[in-house]
Amino acid sequence: VSGSNPAFAKTAIIGVGLLGGSLAMALRQHRLTDRIVGCGRSEENLCIAQSRGIIDAWTQNPAEAVQDADIVVLATPIEAFVPLAASFRSHLKSGSLVTDVGSVKGALVGKIEALMPDGVAFVGGHPIAGGEEAGCAAARADLFAGKRCIITPMPTSDRTACATVIALWRAVGMRTEEMDPFAHDTLYGLVSHFPHLVAYALVNTAVGSDERAIDYAGSGFRDATRIALSPPDLWRGIALANRDAVISAARVFRKELDSIIFAVEKNDASALEVLLHKAQKARNDISGKTVDEE
Amino acid sequence: VSGSNPAFAKTAIIGVGLLGGSLAMALRQHRLTDRIVGCGRSEENLCIAQSRGIIDAWTQNPAEAVQDADIVVLATPIEAFVPLAASFRSHLKSGSLVTDVGSVKGALVGKIEALMPDGVAFVGGHPIAGGEEAGCAAARADLFAGKRCIITPMPTSDRTACATVIALWRAVGMRTEEMDPFAHDTLYGLVSHFPHLVAYALVNTAVGSDERAIDYAGSGFRDATRIALSPPDLWRGIALANRDAVISAARVFRKELDSIIFAVEKNDASALEVLLHKAQKARNDISGKTVDEE
Repeated sequence: VSGSNPAFAKTAIIGVGLLGGSLAMALRQHRLTDRIVGCGRSEENLCIAQSRGIIDAWTQNPAEAVQDADIVVLATPIEAFVPLAASFRSHLKSGSLVTDVGSVKGALVGKIEALMPDGVAFVGGHPIAGGEEAGCAAARADLFAGKRCIITPMPTSDRTACATVIALWRAVGMRTEEMDPFAHDTLYGLVSHFPHLVAYALVNTAVGSDERAIDYAGSGFRDATRIALSPPDLWRGIALANRDAVISAARVFRKELDSIIFAVEKNDASALEVLLHKAQKARNDISGKTVDEE
Repeated sequence: VSGSNPAFAKTAIIGVGLLGGSLAMALRQHRLTDRIVGCGRSEENLCIAQSRGIIDAWTQNPAEAVQDADIVVLATPIEAFVPLAASFRSHLKSGSLVTDVGSVKGALVGKIEALMPDGVAFVGGHPIAGGEEAGCAAARADLFAGKRCIITPMPTSDRTACATVIALWRAVGMRTEEMDPFAHDTLYGLVSHFPHLVAYALVNTAVGSDERAIDYAGSGFRDATRIALSPPDLWRGIALANRDAVISAARVFRKELDSIIFAVEKNDASALEVLLHKAQKARNDISGKTVDEE
């Protein structure tokens, strides 16, 4: 498959938001599909997507959307993945492929794969792209270009389908990497899911202590809390689906923060500098590297 | 004083880093001083500052630097303020003015003012400008333009000197605001000092859990931890000088984070969404406002 682009006569995008809409645009730009049907809950969003040419047609019925589709992409908030798969499974075309763009894999890929009928393969994927904007109005064809995509097959996953999903993301410009679904969740729990919760908590700390405090927030606070602008319904779902990794990251974080605060309490300048310096060095080490948007 | 710019025959900048160097450049650009003498520990940094025309001359001896100076600006890491003031106090010219650019005021302004000889006034200031870069190589004349500067006189402070300090920062383009030194520290403990410690702790969490994790950090993590690139010696001093506010912010933050993590543990989607939504709304409310760099 490497070197040749996949081609899909009909693509169904379930959830035409920032990721789903951008994938639709990228598939079209790279001529990977003939026809794209969008599906979602917001009629207004679907109308915008159609009027902008992001999708060719839309329906609010998932079972109708997947009919005759060669590939189905789950791009809603992750909470909806399993109920959606259950609702459209009997309408999937034999030989078709289902994938997703969800930020959590371990708890989900097994459940979704188990729901697939004979002749339909599921392979999970997590394109590390996006941002705090929501809705197809923010979609753009180059959202994925140059970014990383983690593909998370299970030992039971169909290898041909896995190769097709890899080829799909490569065709829209991503650097792909295979990873165990649970290893993925531990990793992204640490560097993405838990840090989002910290950002929300930081904002709540400022507004909870003093209403006017946040008006004095400078660029440091704003950068540190930019991800707190992310849609709460999306990140609620991600945090809950990746509970174990989030809770274990929180445990490590509490210890790390406690060490720093303990050094402040004890007025221990040298211990404090060691802790801050360790962080500065590690953060500086990634400064020059390619950045995945998320 | 309002409307007329202050003028200083000789300015002494103690600590010619990002802030001190930028102030020197801004004073010169706005023709507020005839001559600038720099003082610091690093001969290399002082040579760079002189060769770039940021300062006219330099000395490593603070007592020599302040001789005949009309205004002395403390712009070193804050830990050095009190020892420096003690070392140069007897060399200050009668009628001169001492000010500073430190991020912590409550614990410092009283001590510095108490060290001033008769005929010399001290008024503290905190220009909310800067960034994670260090040294005069990063200095620029427009660093302060359009940003906020908090002036923190005490009830005992000389009002004429206070007016001069306000006029100085306005002349280089800042929006000035007077505030009680301790109120300043509580506020900036919440929106700046403690969030820096959180950023350092977040990086240590990622590298402490899994060495390769940080390589997977996307733009969200990077923004959230950009302030962990800030110089550890500077922020160690700030955290220790503003211990009480930092510790009290940490206490509020632990409660806020615990509420979020508790909702995750209990799988309480609605409680979690309420907490995330509150933060998103508050963060969104400041998105359109003028940003102070720091």
